[in-house]
Amino acid sequence: MEIVKKKYLSFAGDPEERMHLESGQAIGPVTIAYEVYGKLNHRKDNSILIFHSLTMDSHAAGSYQKTDKEKGWWDGLIGPGKAFDTNRYFIICSNVLGGCKGSTGPSSIDPSTGKPYGMNFPVITLQDMVKAQKILIDFLGVKELLSVAGGSMGGMLALQWFSNYPEITRSVIPIASTWKQSPQQIAFSEVGRQAIMRDVYWNKGNYYEGPHPKNGLSIARMVGHITYMNEKFMEKKFSRKTRHREFCFSFDTEFEIEQYLNHNGDSLINRFDPNSYLYLSKALNYFDVSGEKLISSNNKKQTSFLVISFDSDWLYPSWQSGEIVKFLIARGFSTTYYEISSPYGHDAFLIELKKEAKLIKKFLEKLDNTK
Amino acid sequence: MEIVKKKYLSFAGDPEERMHLESGQAIGPVTIAYEVYGKLNHRKDNSILIFHSLTMDSHAAGSYQKTDKEKGWWDGLIGPGKAFDTNRYFIICSNVLGGCKGSTGPSSIDPSTGKPYGMNFPVITLQDMVKAQKILIDFLGVKELLSVAGGSMGGMLALQWFSNYPEITRSVIPIASTWKQSPQQIAFSEVGRQAIMRDVYWNKGNYYEGPHPKNGLSIARMVGHITYMNEKFMEKKFSRKTRHREFCFSFDTEFEIEQYLNHNGDSLINRFDPNSYLYLSKALNYFDVSGEKLISSNNKKQTSFLVISFDSDWLYPSWQSGEIVKFLIARGFSTTYYEISSPYGHDAFLIELKKEAKLIKKFLEKLDNTK
Repeated sequence: MEIVKKKYLSFAGDPEERMHLESGQAIGPVTIAYEVYGKLNHRKDNSILIFHSLTMDSHAAGSYQKTDKEKGWWDGLIGPGKAFDTNRYFIICSNVLGGCKGSTGPSSIDPSTGKPYGMNFPVITLQDMVKAQKILIDFLGVKELLSVAGGSMGGMLALQWFSNYPEITRSVIPIASTWKQSPQQIAFSEVGRQAIMRDVYWNKGNYYEGPHPKNGLSIARMVGHITYMNEKFMEKKFSRKTRHREFCFSFDTEFEIEQYLNHNGDSLINRFDPNSYLYLSKALNYFDVSGEKLISSNNKKQTSFLVISFDSDWLYPSWQSGEIVKFLIARGFSTTYYEISSPYGHDAFLIELKKEAKLIKKFLEKLDNTK
Repeated sequence: MEIVKKKYLSFAGDPEERMHLESGQAIGPVTIAYEVYGKLNHRKDNSILIFHSLTMDSHAAGSYQKTDKEKGWWDGLIGPGKAFDTNRYFIICSNVLGGCKGSTGPSSIDPSTGKPYGMNFPVITLQDMVKAQKILIDFLGVKELLSVAGGSMGGMLALQWFSNYPEITRSVIPIASTWKQSPQQIAFSEVGRQAIMRDVYWNKGNYYEGPHPKNGLSIARMVGHITYMNEKFMEKKFSRKTRHREFCFSFDTEFEIEQYLNHNGDSLINRFDPNSYLYLSKALNYFDVSGEKLISSNNKKQTSFLVISFDSDWLYPSWQSGEIVKFLIARGFSTTYYEISSPYGHDAFLIELKKEAKLIKKFLEKLDNTK
């Protein structure tokens, strides 16, 4: 994969043409950070839109510089000859509205005050996020999407996209996902939000000029990490191992699992804005395209689905994917469902790349052949 | 059940006779708050020791005054004619060492400074807790225990008791419990501890004269409540219900599950000391009487076991109780195991009283007949 570049599209800059949101509010200007890999063909029908998960961004594949130690978060799936084959497909990935990786979000400057929005940023939904991404693909000249795909929040965005724009969506690949947030998913999100909002440094969201609510974000992330990992795998990886031979009889991090959680919690603050965490997690909690809500009136039943879940994922358990599949089949959609056997829990969508690649490659090739 | 009274036993007041702890430290004086229900018989062999769970206390049954709205936390199981029949048995329940309901803990006055211990309180283990309770039953003149019983931390204390004092323990009833803490259990505890210790008002444990780290404790409790409840039951009880007809598009508590968590989190601060939460959860994480550690050299294999788990409990899942049972049977202990079918998750040990009562009553009667 060649060197990639983050690009930006700005719109709704005219006060008369602000972007209208599901809440009834409006916002502008809006910038969406995005990356593209591969080339749009002459028929303009080889595009695939990739959606990222909660704390990820537009950098799904490749490197910005040759010296980069890490590649994009789904680099194992996106590139020449890979499942999302950049020799054949034009891949687009953008940072969601409300994020903090180049797209407009609560840490962006509010033009009406000249200061970061903070909590003056309007509450957004997954519908608003895909609406902004529709403006991006229109700008890129894409008329039809061969597929929309993503894991976790990315999978939910793929379903939301289909619900809004079925007429230009040939296929949908929701992975480790659901069609509506459950109370347990809302509960875990709420604990994370409360940890942030109850951090004294949160200061009602106005922390950009002072210390950030880093402890709150860290706690939110620690809770998240527990839910991303399967308990049996945790048992295998950490068991009751401690840093020292004998018990410390202190409150320092002592068990290896404690160290893992604290390290991962604390490191998020270097790459994520606490207010964005609030907005994106709230958007997730609002998400519900279950049942008839999935099917818009523009639907012509030509869309194919590849639904993937992981047997060890207890945060987005297989039965939730199963509900979607059952409904789609009953409605006559061409639907393929795989439950991948994996020890990694919810994180599996970022780890089990070989297994995912095999399924995705086959699915996309079949789509190509039925054009 | 008659009106009950909280009593106190103090010991280790002499500087020469402080209580020695597993950590190598020593503490004194130690006060243990306790309650007794029923009467000790002439043979002194009708005693049952009940252990409480994390945030409970010695008040297992009855009322302190006729006007009390709530009775003890296991009142449905303890009383005349009930499973733990106070007409037949002498029931003892004490607040654990490290607690904050009358027993010595971090909020108690450190005699060397005249101020609350705070983090100068020594780190304790479940072994230290049962050691203090052994001193209590010796004081009460109890020579042998007909049974030791408890749910959650109480179940672990019952196993710890047996590991330490098998020769005076005729039976053990661990409910919704484990014989060693798993990394997932440690992980959830650690998030709670970090939420408390990262609250600015925690002040390294010295908050007793100022504002308490109530937000930290609340977050810890919210995480706890998610783990105490089964996801399917959460779905049934809360589903995606909101307080208002339409979405608020704000960060106020909106979904009913959010309100439930915030209410329960915030209410704990009125009845629990954050430092005690740290000490007790850390003691739990150290807990491990798995395998040979369960069997002390004083063991004469006369002890009977009634192990109970709940099929919807994912925090202390049935397979953990199953491990204990398998080991006990292999070692020739008379062991009865029931997995109760219940929707309530880990909380079931406080809710499914009728089902527990039936099993416990039968088990104790059989013990009585084989004296």
